[in-house]
Parts: sequence; C-alpha cells; structure tokens
Amino acid sequence: MSSWVDGSPAELLSVRDRGLAYGDGLFETIAVRAGRPRLLARHLARLEEGGRRLRMALPLELIEQELLAFCADLGEGVAKLLVTRGDGVRGYAAASDAPVRRILLGSPAPAYPPQHSTQGVTLFPCSTRLAEQPLLAGLKHLNRLEQVLARAEWSDPAIAEGLMRDQSGRVIEGVFSNLFLVRDGQLKTADLGRCGVSGVMRAELIERAGALGLPVIIGDIEFTELLAADEVFLCNSLYGIWPVRQMAEHSWPLGRLTRKLQDNLRETLDF
Amino acid sequence: MSSWVDGSPAELLSVRDRGLAYGDGLFETIAVRAGRPRLLARHLARLEEGGRRLRMALPLELIEQELLAFCADLGEGVAKLLVTRGDGVRGYAAASDAPVRRILLGSPAPAYPPQHSTQGVTLFPCSTRLAEQPLLAGLKHLNRLEQVLARAEWSDPAIAEGLMRDQSGRVIEGVFSNLFLVRDGQLKTADLGRCGVSGVMRAELIERAGALGLPVIIGDIEFTELLAADEVFLCNSLYGIWPVRQMAEHSWPLGRLTRKLQDNLRETLDF
Repeated sequence: MSSWVDGSPAELLSVRDRGLAYGDGLFETIAVRAGRPRLLARHLARLEEGGRRLRMALPLELIEQELLAFCADLGEGVAKLLVTRGDGVRGYAAASDAPVRRILLGSPAPAYPPQHSTQGVTLFPCSTRLAEQPLLAGLKHLNRLEQVLARAEWSDPAIAEGLMRDQSGRVIEGVFSNLFLVRDGQLKTADLGRCGVSGVMRAELIERAGALGLPVIIGDIEFTELLAADEVFLCNSLYGIWPVRQMAEHSWPLGRLTRKLQDNLRETLDF
Repeated sequence: MSSWVDGSPAELLSVRDRGLAYGDGLFETIAVRAGRPRLLARHLARLEEGGRRLRMALPLELIEQELLAFCADLGEGVAKLLVTRGDGVRGYAAASDAPVRRILLGSPAPAYPPQHSTQGVTLFPCSTRLAEQPLLAGLKHLNRLEQVLARAEWSDPAIAEGLMRDQSGRVIEGVFSNLFLVRDGQLKTADLGRCGVSGVMRAELIERAGALGLPVIIGDIEFTELLAADEVFLCNSLYGIWPVRQMAEHSWPLGRLTRKLQDNLRETLDF
C-alpha cells in the first residue's frame, strides 16, 4: 500500500527523525470510504489539541490538504497520519523552528468478523496497567509501549480486545478502543485526565448520545462497576461499536442502548 | 555523520518501522574513544535486559559485531544504537518472528563546557513529573516524550540539566542523567523500580563506590532530602560526573566524595 512523506510518495524516512528517537509526535488512524476520510473534523481537532499540548507548530491546512489528496488516491481502507518534530540533532531539546514532518501510511480496511458488531466480543483482562501522566493523557502520541505490552498478553483469535486499567485499578479503555458502560439506563465512560486516549469515536458517541437524550457521565470507573454494568461496549473510528459479551468468567447481555447507538451510527456513518 | 541500518550505511529507514509507530524499541548512547565503545559490556547488558523485558529476541552477537565495526569507523564521538521490532503491519500486535532492526547513528562528542565537571552545574527544577510504570521502569526505551517535555522547560544556556521527580514528588534523576546525593558521608541514588532510566554510568559508579568502601543506598529520595544533602552530583556515560551546585535559590558545595569519584573515573576511563 502507498505511503507519503511530506506530501510525496516515499517508503523511507530519515533515520534521525525524532518520531523514531523519542516518539516525539502524534498520530491519527482514519477510516477512508470512497476516497474520503471519515470523521475528518474530529481527527483534525484532536491532532490540533495534541500539537498545542506538545508545543508542535502543526501546519494544519497543509496537513488536511495532503490527507485529502492521500485519501482520494487510496479510495478505501485506512489512512494513518503521523506528524513528528522532524529530524533531531543529539539530545532531547528540539529546535523551536523545526519543520513538522508529515507521514501518511495506507492500508486495507481491517477484516474484523461481522459478528464482532452483531453478536459482540470477548475482552481479555490485561495485566499491563496504564501509567498516570496528566501531561500526555488523552493524546494519541507516539509513545505506545504500554499498548504493545498489553496486546502481547493474548494470542487467542477468539479474543477481540483487551481491557486496560490504570495503576489504581480503575477501568480506562481497550488497547485500541474506548469503553462505555450502561447502568440503570445511564451511559458512562472513563475520565481520561490521567491516562488513556481520547478517541474520536468516543467524542462522536458522547455527542450522539446527548442528542438522543442520553447524556454520558464522564468519571472514574471502578472495576466492580464494570462487572455490575447492564451493558458494556467498545468503540473506535474504524469499527464503530462492538458490544462486549464476555471477559474471563464474567458475561454481559447485548443491551438495548448499545443497539440503539449502533443503529444511530449506521444510519449516517456507514458502519 | 554516518549512520547504518542493519549493518550497512544508510540514511533512511522504512516508514513502517515500529520504532516510529509506537516507540517499540530500545536505545543506547555510547561514548566512542579511539574507535572503541566505552563501557561496552554495561551497554550490552542493559540492552539485553531491555530485550528480555520487552520480549524482543535481540541478536546480541550481531549487534555487538556491528557496533564494534561502526565505532572503529567513527573513531571519536558518540554512537547511538537503536533496536526496534522492525516493520509493522497495522495494529499493536507484533509478529513473534519479526527480525529486530538495528540502527546506528554517529555524532560528534558533545561540546560540554569543561567547567561543568570542574566547578559544577545549575539544575532546573522541572515541573514535568515522571509517570510510574514498573513494566518500563529502568529501561532505555524509545518512549521519551516526558524527557522531551521536561527539556523544553528551560532554554537558559547557563542551566545544564533538569531535575525530574515522580508523580509523588520523589527525586528520580536528571533529564539525561542519573543523580546521586551524599549525606553524612553516605552515598544514595534513587530506586528506579517505578520510573527512571537505569544508566550505565550509575551502575559503574555504584560498583566503583563499593570498591572504595562507599556502599550506595538505593531507595526513595524525598525532595527535602535532596535539599538537605551535603553533596549532589549527576552522571551519565558521555560526561562522567557533574557536581550540582545550584537549583533555583538552593545551593550545594562541591564536595569531597564527588571529587573522589571523579578522580577515580578519570584514572581509568579517560574523563
């Protein structure tokens, strides 16, 4: 599949890129349908927020322009956009005027079994805990060793995702998803002020649920609260919503609100 | 300066490298004198430990062989060795048989002012706190955004290093150094079980101090303990030892044990 660096087709980049050296950058994983990036505004908004917090001067118009051209070229699949602080000399200090490097990687749409959406998935309870770092919490940055370690904890193909908790045991998210639960008709998702990735589908669902008269509580989720939930589901921008049915010996039903949000997404976003 | 990828001169690398995508790898920054890597055994031992903990099957003999050839070619300066889990397909799961990619980057020896060693340095009290992640603590892995944020906190060239504390405020290390203190003739350095990088010079100094009859306590260091110390010094494998003389309004004398360890290093390691 195709890849671009700084707006031109390229399969290679400088060995001195700070994205490699330090993970000094951000990324977005974007569904591409009929040559268009899905949820573009949300992806760009998160990227802008990441740039602001990491103090990277992102050329947002240029990034959008390159992304649109790349997606048009790709047609169908996934566009992964990475931005890094460009080449580094030795040492952690970055040149304040370092031009941001843009990298675009194309790949086919992931082949998730359709039953993941229709019948739900099994979740693996990862023992890898997320560290609490408010300065990086919520960002989709390039420091992702915790996710690599967590994903390496299971190899059973019957398990679709892994549950990640923080150092205090609170429920945060999936390895590549956000998590919602329903209790007594009330939707809830984890506060991401200490760790976790603030997913664009999470933001989309919070807005859609609100429009349906179902405001979402954003707060701390204890593990016992997850186990006691009436419904649990995962979401991300590639697959939409997966109901969670099983984790170790625990099971949850496929619930009414989960279906309602899936239907709502399907009506307008082609999931 | 020269760079190699997988044993051959190269300035470019695949855009799909997992080191870029996730920081899925390790590095070593190695002083090169007269064509030889300094403290080679310690660097290789730390790399091996990192590979074991990240479950990367490192080809250690090949890595050593390439490093020795690269250093012979470089002559004088710094060799930065990176190992990554190679190219990735989309997603955090790594192929279990993915060949490890070796990257070697040469650079000139850093031009630190000689007074840093002789008269000591000023330390900046960074507000960036290190997250606590026992699974990654001690390793020199490629997820280094905390160091990038901390280093961006000061630009005054009169400040040589920054102090990093953990989320609970305990004293851990410098941005690119480890830290020791002396109180009542007793050496102490931070326990790195929750965060921090286990430096090769830290290990070297713990061994040398022991041989001089000065065992080092490894434990938690409260901020007040740092302020009350008789001597404070920083170390890394490129510059050896820098006495710390000042941090904000606080100052420390240049002490006897710091000098003793500097002399001991100079006698055998050419600092």
